[in-house]
Amino acid sequence: MKEKLEQLKTLLAEAIDLQMAAAVLGWDQQVNMPSAGAETRGQQMATLQRLAHIKATSDEIGKLLDDLSAYTEELPPDSDEARLVKVARRDYEIATRVPADFVAEFTRLTAVAFDAWQKARAASDFALFRPHLERIVEMGRQYVEFFAPYEHPYDPLLDRFEPGMKTAEVKEIFDALRPQQVALIQEIGAAQQVDDSFLHGDFDEQKQWDFGVEVITRFGYDWSRGRQDKSAHPFTTSFSTRDVRITTRVQRDFLPSALFGTLHEGGHALYEQGVNPAYDRTSLAGGASLAVHESQSRTYENLVGRSLPFWEFFYPRLQEYFPAQLGNVDLQTFYRGINKVQPSLIRVEADEATYNLHIMLRLDLEIAMVEGSLEVRHLPDVWNTKMQEYLGITPPDDAQGVLQDVHWSSGLMGYFSTYALGNLIAAQLWEKVSADIPDLEDQFRRGEFGALLAWMREHIHQYGRKFEPQELVERATGSRITPEPYMRYLRRKYGEIYSL
Amino acid sequence: MKEKLEQLKTLLAEAIDLQMAAAVLGWDQQVNMPSAGAETRGQQMATLQRLAHIKATSDEIGKLLDDLSAYTEELPPDSDEARLVKVARRDYEIATRVPADFVAEFTRLTAVAFDAWQKARAASDFALFRPHLERIVEMGRQYVEFFAPYEHPYDPLLDRFEPGMKTAEVKEIFDALRPQQVALIQEIGAAQQVDDSFLHGDFDEQKQWDFGVEVITRFGYDWSRGRQDKSAHPFTTSFSTRDVRITTRVQRDFLPSALFGTLHEGGHALYEQGVNPAYDRTSLAGGASLAVHESQSRTYENLVGRSLPFWEFFYPRLQEYFPAQLGNVDLQTFYRGINKVQPSLIRVEADEATYNLHIMLRLDLEIAMVEGSLEVRHLPDVWNTKMQEYLGITPPDDAQGVLQDVHWSSGLMGYFSTYALGNLIAAQLWEKVSADIPDLEDQFRRGEFGALLAWMREHIHQYGRKFEPQELVERATGSRITPEPYMRYLRRKYGEIYSL
Repeated sequence: MKEKLEQLKTLLAEAIDLQMAAAVLGWDQQVNMPSAGAETRGQQMATLQRLAHIKATSDEIGKLLDDLSAYTEELPPDSDEARLVKVARRDYEIATRVPADFVAEFTRLTAVAFDAWQKARAASDFALFRPHLERIVEMGRQYVEFFAPYEHPYDPLLDRFEPGMKTAEVKEIFDALRPQQVALIQEIGAAQQVDDSFLHGDFDEQKQWDFGVEVITRFGYDWSRGRQDKSAHPFTTSFSTRDVRITTRVQRDFLPSALFGTLHEGGHALYEQGVNPAYDRTSLAGGASLAVHESQSRTYENLVGRSLPFWEFFYPRLQEYFPAQLGNVDLQTFYRGINKVQPSLIRVEADEATYNLHIMLRLDLEIAMVEGSLEVRHLPDVWNTKMQEYLGITPPDDAQGVLQDVHWSSGLMGYFSTYALGNLIAAQLWEKVSADIPDLEDQFRRGEFGALLAWMREHIHQYGRKFEPQELVERATGSRITPEPYMRYLRRKYGEIYSL
Repeated sequence: MKEKLEQLKTLLAEAIDLQMAAAVLGWDQQVNMPSAGAETRGQQMATLQRLAHIKATSDEIGKLLDDLSAYTEELPPDSDEARLVKVARRDYEIATRVPADFVAEFTRLTAVAFDAWQKARAASDFALFRPHLERIVEMGRQYVEFFAPYEHPYDPLLDRFEPGMKTAEVKEIFDALRPQQVALIQEIGAAQQVDDSFLHGDFDEQKQWDFGVEVITRFGYDWSRGRQDKSAHPFTTSFSTRDVRITTRVQRDFLPSALFGTLHEGGHALYEQGVNPAYDRTSLAGGASLAVHESQSRTYENLVGRSLPFWEFFYPRLQEYFPAQLGNVDLQTFYRGINKVQPSLIRVEADEATYNLHIMLRLDLEIAMVEGSLEVRHLPDVWNTKMQEYLGITPPDDAQGVLQDVHWSSGLMGYFSTYALGNLIAAQLWEKVSADIPDLEDQFRRGEFGALLAWMREHIHQYGRKFEPQELVERATGSRITPEPYMRYLRRKYGEIYSL
C-alpha cells in the first residue's frame, strides 16, 4: 500500500509539474512576452493544460485511489497521507465528472464570449454580450447536473472555488451581513466627509515601488523565493513554495494603487511561501480556497495596511519618500484619507466598507440565474435596481454596471462570493490573533510583523490544501465562518473615523 | 494521406509545444528565477522533457511516418511536405535508436560529472574529473554502436549537431585549414603588435546596453517578437518565430564583452526570427544546424561587427556614448584594437584568427578518444602538447587547459567543431553576399543593413531545418563547406591590420 501511495504521488506530481509549467508560461505572458508571441503561447499553454488534464484524470490514478481508500481509513484522519488521498480523490472526482467534450465546448464558448464582452463593454451595449451570457448560463446549468444530486444548483459552482462550502451557508452569512452593512454606509453617508485629495498628485514611480518593497520585506516576504514585476493587472503566482512571484502596477497620479496592490499581493504570496514545503508537487500544495487566500491578502492590505498602528511606523518613512506631496499632511488626515468611504459604481475601486455589497449583489444575480428565476435579458435592470437598493446609486450605463467585470465572460460563475468571504475570514482571524498576541498593535508601531506572520504560518499557511476552508477557519478560531467579527471591525473602525 | 499528414503534424506539434515550454522554463531559470526555485524547476523541466521524448517517440508517429513514406516520394522532393516528413523521420530515428534506459543512465552520469567537473576546475585537479570523463567516453562509444553501421565512429556524435555531416569531411576541411592558420598566426606574432588598452576602463553599464540595442535594432532585430535581458552566460532562445529572445552580460571594465556578445546573440536571433513562420510547431522550425546557426552569429559579430565600414558609421556614435574613454582614440586605432590577435589559453576569449585552432585541438582529442587511440588519463599531456604546437603556448595548469570547457562534462561530444564550421560558413556566405550586393560596404558606412538581412533571409533563414547544412550552403553559395573563403578573409583582414 505504501508503494501504491508512492505511485499515486508520482502520477500526481507529473500532472502538477505540467500545471506549474503552464503557470510559468502564464506569468511570462503577462510580464515579459513580446506581443507577437501570444498565438503560439496560447497553443503551448493549451497543450500543457490538456496533457495535465489527461494525466490528472487517468484510469491509473482512479484505480490507485480506489485501492488506497481502505488503507487510508486506517491512518490517523488528520495525517498528511490520509488528507492527501482525500484531496486527490476530490480533485479526481471533479475533473472526471465533467466530460472532455463539455470542457472543450465551454473553452470555445468562453473564448468567443470574452471577446464579445470586451466589445460590449467598450460600446456599453449589453445586447452584444447577451447571447453569449445566455449560453454560458445554460452551460453552467448543464455543468451543475454532472454533480447531481445536490442541495442547491449553485452548490457545484461554488464548490469549485470553496471546497465543501454550500450555497445555504453563504446565503445565511450574507443575509445576516447585508442589512448591517447597508445601515453603516447610510450612517457614514450622513456624516462629515473625509478629504483624500492629497492622494492624487505626482508620485515618482520608482519611489512608489521602493516603498512597497520596503513594506512587504518587513512583512516577511522572502525575496530568495520570489520576485516582483510589473503587469497590467496585479497578480500572485506560485510554481512551488520556493518560487512565489507577485506583480504590481504603478499609477503615477494616484498613490494608493501600487501601494495597496503590493500589500494585497504580498499577503497572497506570504500564504504561498508559508505552505509546508513537503507539500510541493502534491495535491496539498497551494491555498485552501480562494476565500482563505483572499483573507490573507485582505489582512495585509486592510487590517494591517490601512490601520493606524501600521502608519504610525510607516508614515514618517512615506513622508521621506514624498516630502513635497505629504510633508504637510498629518498622520490622522492621511489615515482618514486612505480609509475614505464612498459608495461607487466599480467593484475593484470600492472601499472596505462598501466592497462586500458589490459582491452580494453579484451573488444574488448568479444564484437567480442558475435557479432560473432571472433571465439574462432582465439582468441590466435588476443590476441597476439592486445598486440603488444596496449602495444608493444607479449606474449611468451598462459599462459601469452589469458589464464591468470579466468573470462571467470567462465562465467563472461561483467565484465572486470568495472575495467577500475572504474579508469575513480576515476579520475573524484578526480577532483571534489579537487575543493571542495582546501587544500586536504595539509591535506594528515598532515596525515588527514577525509575530503576526508566525501566527498565520502556524494556524493557516502551513496546511496548504490539507483542510477545507470551514474546517481550517474553525481550527484556527474556534468557529466556522461568521460575519460578526467583520461587522464589529467595520463598526469600530469607521465609527471612529466618521465619529458615528 | 493528407489526413495522415495532418495527424502527424498534430502529434509533432504536441511534442514541440512541450519542448518549447521547457525552453521558456529554461530561459526563466537563467533570467528571472529566484535562487531557491532551482530544485522544483529542475523537476518541472525533467517532466516536460520526458513527456516530450515519449510523445516524439510514440509508435503512433512511427506508424504514420511509415504510412507516409510512399506518399511523400510522389511529392516534389523539395516541397515543404516532403521535407517535413524527411526531417521528422530523421528525428524519430535518432530518438528511437537510443534506449530509454541508456538516456536515463547518461542523464544521471552527466549530472554527477558536471558537479565533479566544477570541483575539478576550481581545484585545477584533472584527477577529480577523470573517472567521470572515462565513463562519459565509454558511454559515448556505446551510443555510437546504436547507429552502426557507420563510416567512422565519430559520425553519429557529429550527426546529432550537424545533420548529414561526416567526420571525414570535417577532417578534410580542418586538415586544409590548420597549416594555413598556424602560419598566419606565426606571421602576426612576428609583426608589430596592436594596442587595445583603451578597451579596458570604466564604461557605464546602461550606455553599453543602449549602444548594443541601437546596433541590433539597425541590423533588423524585431523587438515586437523578442526582448533582451541579462544573464550570467549570454544565449539566444526561441519559443516560436514570434518570440525569439536574447541575453547579454555587461562588464563595466571591458567594453567588448557586452557589445560583441549582443551582436553575436543578435545574429542567432535574426536567424530564428527569419524562419518561415509557417514552420512554427513543425519539425522544420529552428535552425538547420549548430554550424549554420553559428555562421549567422559570427557574421554579425565579426564580419559585420568587427569590420571597418561598420565602424565608420557606428564609431562616432560610440564616441558620443563614451567621450571621456574614446574621444581621443581614432577610428583606425579602435578598429585595430578590437581586432587584436594574441594566442591565448581560453577558447571563449580567443580572437577571430586563433579561435579555430582551439576547436581543432578539441576535435582531434575527441576523435582520438572515440576511436580508442587516446586514453583519458593521457588527455592533459596531449592537450598541452597540442596547445604548444598550434598556438605556441602551454597552459600553466589544467584549469586553464583541459578543464576549461563545460561541454564534455555535459556529455556534449561532437559539438565543438560546429563553432569552427560556423566561422567557415560565415566567410563563404560573405563572399557570395558581397558578390551579389557590390555596394554592401557602402551600405554599412551609411548604417544600412537591410540588404544583408534580406539576402540571409532569402538564402538561409527562411528555410529553417528544411535542408541539411551542406545542402543549404551549396544552394546558397554553389559549393559545399570549404575553408578557402575563410582563409582569404583572414589573410586580407589581418594582412592589412598587421602589414604582413
